[in-house]
Amino acid sequence: MAESEPGPVEPEVRAALDRLTGQVVASFGRTPDPRLKALLTDLVRHLHEYVIANDVTQEEWQAAIGFLTRAGHITTETRQEFVLASDVLGVSSAVDMLANARTPGTTPSAVLGPFYVQGPPPAEHGSDIANGLPGTPLWVDVRITDTEGNPVPDVFTDVWQSNEDGFYDVQLPDLDGPVLRARFHSDDEGRVRFWTIMPSAYPIPDDGPVGAMLSATGRHQWRAPHLHFLFGKQGYHRLITQLFVRGGPYLDTSGGQGDAVFGVKDDLIADFVPGNGPAPAGRVVDGEWRRLEFTFRIKKE
Amino acid sequence: MAESEPGPVEPEVRAALDRLTGQVVASFGRTPDPRLKALLTDLVRHLHEYVIANDVTQEEWQAAIGFLTRAGHITTETRQEFVLASDVLGVSSAVDMLANARTPGTTPSAVLGPFYVQGPPPAEHGSDIANGLPGTPLWVDVRITDTEGNPVPDVFTDVWQSNEDGFYDVQLPDLDGPVLRARFHSDDEGRVRFWTIMPSAYPIPDDGPVGAMLSATGRHQWRAPHLHFLFGKQGYHRLITQLFVRGGPYLDTSGGQGDAVFGVKDDLIADFVPGNGPAPAGRVVDGEWRRLEFTFRIKKE
Repeated sequence: MAESEPGPVEPEVRAALDRLTGQVVASFGRTPDPRLKALLTDLVRHLHEYVIANDVTQEEWQAAIGFLTRAGHITTETRQEFVLASDVLGVSSAVDMLANARTPGTTPSAVLGPFYVQGPPPAEHGSDIANGLPGTPLWVDVRITDTEGNPVPDVFTDVWQSNEDGFYDVQLPDLDGPVLRARFHSDDEGRVRFWTIMPSAYPIPDDGPVGAMLSATGRHQWRAPHLHFLFGKQGYHRLITQLFVRGGPYLDTSGGQGDAVFGVKDDLIADFVPGNGPAPAGRVVDGEWRRLEFTFRIKKE
Repeated sequence: MAESEPGPVEPEVRAALDRLTGQVVASFGRTPDPRLKALLTDLVRHLHEYVIANDVTQEEWQAAIGFLTRAGHITTETRQEFVLASDVLGVSSAVDMLANARTPGTTPSAVLGPFYVQGPPPAEHGSDIANGLPGTPLWVDVRITDTEGNPVPDVFTDVWQSNEDGFYDVQLPDLDGPVLRARFHSDDEGRVRFWTIMPSAYPIPDDGPVGAMLSATGRHQWRAPHLHFLFGKQGYHRLITQLFVRGGPYLDTSGGQGDAVFGVKDDLIADFVPGNGPAPAGRVVDGEWRRLEFTFRIKKE
């Protein structure tokens, strides 16, 4: 449908639109759950305000419907295009920051991301979750404490990360079982220790509508290198977070060309220091290796 | 993940969120198309403002992702749940009103709805598109003019509507071919004339996430009875609209319990007057029948 260019909305049109918004808000007036009512009526107000402020055309709205339709059709059990869209628009990160504000004194959370798999393989302290894959060896030695600094034992600790080429195991069909993902349980000192390899930068999936949007807007697809952690224990708030490599690429988001999903927080940038002296856990390392030490703070419910 | 109840956002949290919003807006700074850039950056601002103003929790955001995922999975070539969601939130109607404001002097448009089928069967003036289906006979005699009131001949005119039970033909798998839908071409006087039956109220599809939302919010699913029209001719703006039955159900949206998709406009409510005298087009009607006369105004491009 050919139409004129969008322009400012006339006062009488605006008044009619405001009446429409009022009618839609009123239609939710009988919602039994007050929180659902508040969320939906404010969603209506924001959506209406958005289309009015931008004088959105029918073609543009149809393009948005097309985006959502393509996102829905590419989404499967192992591919979540709506989460990806929420990530690249910074909405996931905003929700995440609001959640962090509700649990002061704890380590900030970060987005779960699309590559977490329920029930990772159990692993022993000191083992190598890279299972011999190429990459710079990394010794991880982290502590889990409560908000008073007391160690928390027996916290299940899921870790997962990309390989040297920027892929997760689930993206590599030829792999024989999971790798670079594991579940530990913290010891009596609240510690979890294991060998792995340095994480690498990687592109988010670009073969769906989100990738097309990034292309059309001149945005890159790269995530800053990071390790994922998920901590859980009965009686404690679950913590989902990531640690980023200080000095690594895509950390600076101030210019709008940092981490593609806006997942970096200053408190989650950690030192991955060059190792020296004998490698831990009896390992013989031929060449460079790194060491990561970090203390995570989780909160009682 | 258990969390505290949503509460007001602290100033320093708000400042950090504003920095995040600024980073996401900056990420779109290299978008070549200025309109796309404006639409996406303002979308980012509105989405962020929405989650912040409502202190949206991670569970709530996941519920929204789940809604979109279910909508995507139920959407097919003949079922558009995202359009339905946009309709019941009044967004389609808002976009429609903005479009109408850009073509003053024309008949207001109305939403296309989910039951339009491309390429309806050609029909002759005076024929019965109900093909003998039960219902109150309706004689339709409409004129198409330009904004100066001059008749416009040879306008293709697609009409479609529900049957007496509130169903469209595409919802009835046992039907042998299309019925209650047809394509006419206006004659030299710009007129289109045909027999059909009175349209009935009908529920929008309720077996998807939109239906679940209406249930959860105490909203009904009914559309006010209407006839759909789509007018097209080379050199003219296409007009998609509906005519509603004056005095019919679900017309009053002021209390929030009118037409489920907010499609009723005062200028589209028409008189479906009781017929008297001999029925047109040589038809013998045994009992009540109605007559609809209306003038549609379309605009040159």
